[in-house]
Amino acid sequence: MKPTQQDLIDCATRLEPYIHHTPVLTSSTVNQLAQAEVFFKCENFQKMGAFKMRGAANAILQLSEEEKTKGVVTHSSGNFAQAVSLAAKQQGIKAYIVMPNNAPIPKRSAVIDYGGEVIECEPTIAAREAAVDRIIEKTGATALHPSNQMEVIVGQGTAAMELLEKHPELNSIITPVGGGGLLGGTALAAHYFSKNCTVVGAEPEGADDAFRSFAAGEILGNENPQTVADGLRTMLGDNNFPIIKEHVEHITLVEEKEILSTMCLIWERMKIIIEPSSAVAIAPVLRGEFRGQKVGVIISGGNVDLANIPFL
Amino acid sequence: MKPTQQDLIDCATRLEPYIHHTPVLTSSTVNQLAQAEVFFKCENFQKMGAFKMRGAANAILQLSEEEKTKGVVTHSSGNFAQAVSLAAKQQGIKAYIVMPNNAPIPKRSAVIDYGGEVIECEPTIAAREAAVDRIIEKTGATALHPSNQMEVIVGQGTAAMELLEKHPELNSIITPVGGGGLLGGTALAAHYFSKNCTVVGAEPEGADDAFRSFAAGEILGNENPQTVADGLRTMLGDNNFPIIKEHVEHITLVEEKEILSTMCLIWERMKIIIEPSSAVAIAPVLRGEFRGQKVGVIISGGNVDLANIPFL
Repeated sequence: MKPTQQDLIDCATRLEPYIHHTPVLTSSTVNQLAQAEVFFKCENFQKMGAFKMRGAANAILQLSEEEKTKGVVTHSSGNFAQAVSLAAKQQGIKAYIVMPNNAPIPKRSAVIDYGGEVIECEPTIAAREAAVDRIIEKTGATALHPSNQMEVIVGQGTAAMELLEKHPELNSIITPVGGGGLLGGTALAAHYFSKNCTVVGAEPEGADDAFRSFAAGEILGNENPQTVADGLRTMLGDNNFPIIKEHVEHITLVEEKEILSTMCLIWERMKIIIEPSSAVAIAPVLRGEFRGQKVGVIISGGNVDLANIPFL
Repeated sequence: MKPTQQDLIDCATRLEPYIHHTPVLTSSTVNQLAQAEVFFKCENFQKMGAFKMRGAANAILQLSEEEKTKGVVTHSSGNFAQAVSLAAKQQGIKAYIVMPNNAPIPKRSAVIDYGGEVIECEPTIAAREAAVDRIIEKTGATALHPSNQMEVIVGQGTAAMELLEKHPELNSIITPVGGGGLLGGTALAAHYFSKNCTVVGAEPEGADDAFRSFAAGEILGNENPQTVADGLRTMLGDNNFPIIKEHVEHITLVEEKEILSTMCLIWERMKIIIEPSSAVAIAPVLRGEFRGQKVGVIISGGNVDLANIPFL
């Protein structure tokens, strides 16, 4: 069932105490390059540094009291792991995070800092899923999916709701697309809270399952996604794909070298730290795809390992 | 003559079309570490990436029409060079920037990008001053000083005016101190536009002339300043020292390793790019010098050569 306008309104109210209303920044340099008026919704300034906080908090807030006593479990080595850990801590419940035993130390530490319990597994999809199943069996914890779950999709949509409230005149909003939670939520928000704002997804060429799926009208997988945009190495899910098919205008592809040059430009000129996935959504704007428009960009997050800055 | 309250008000009005009202950011991580409520006035988001834009624009705006036709000249290899170049371009006048011939390429390029004309000289104070004199003789350009000039000091004070307008309840404001323009201007702003807000300067141990001068009651030089905070390797001037003596509460020192760890922490947790000079003003807050207070920090700028990030 597609979420309603009221679902999004209720979600925004529910999230109020748990998230930041992130600022919207502009840059005359970017406007000049893009030949457009660009409004950056800075989810890199969100709690734990990414929009994922919204969806994680919304999913956890809707658990029953009994479910809450048993905690939540997810497998992720990225922003969703941190988001679940922090949102669970805020609400005083337990978070089990399954991570591959080769996950980078900083990502592990971040989860632990936010109060999550890390459970290691072999670095295969099968091992991850088995580990989640074992935890559910043992603890009764509720599994949370980083993108393919309605509570998560609706939660992510609140970033665009805030953006449209400040800038109802936007012609378009562009977001990165990996699993499709942010893109789906944004498309719902634009559908319900704007007159004519179109929504566009941006995807790395090396992980183009959403682009191909959108063209084919059915979900096509990604064998072996290769991109520096670590947040986008995932696949579209069956809950967000119908929303994307119905409410997204098109999906545009971005080359690896564009991701890196865009990321570097934004650090240098805007003085904000964005992660590679965010650069994916900005690159099409810089190459003039929104010329003459007022365009919003959801900057998805700013969690980068400073010891391994990808454009250096 | 000490600038009056009206001088600052007039300056803020004059600058309005030429600068950004920069945002004020907060961070719950920083508040926790500092055990204080900390408000960051983000001049790293100012035009050309630093507060220097304010003072440069204010000085140029007050030139006579005849002076404007002849242009302005300054010697700087840092943010003031870029600020003068951009402010001059905004007002359609010529900017001559004297730079040592060993200045880093990115700094040269930035000045040229903003429309300044670079004049090279040998990397000594004497050679710089001689080059400026030659340009004045040849062109009749007006010399601008990065910090020791009332129009510049007053201009820098407008950052604190904006901060105090948003947060009149602040107990203190801390700024870095190099030449003393920002600290002096901030002290004037707090004096005229707050009830009881004290102003503190922060200085690297390796360039502690303001600290020693403040203690001695007279300007004491710096033989050979050694600090990663490249913006603070300058000396107090005779125009800002009396203001600082009268209106600054004290000056606090910061070690090199604190500068680097603070800079890294702010990049990682706040997702904003700050230059080492800004970290100098944040370090005392993080070590608890403002415990229990509402404290404003002027983040002076965000111009960092990304190919040489000092904490990496």
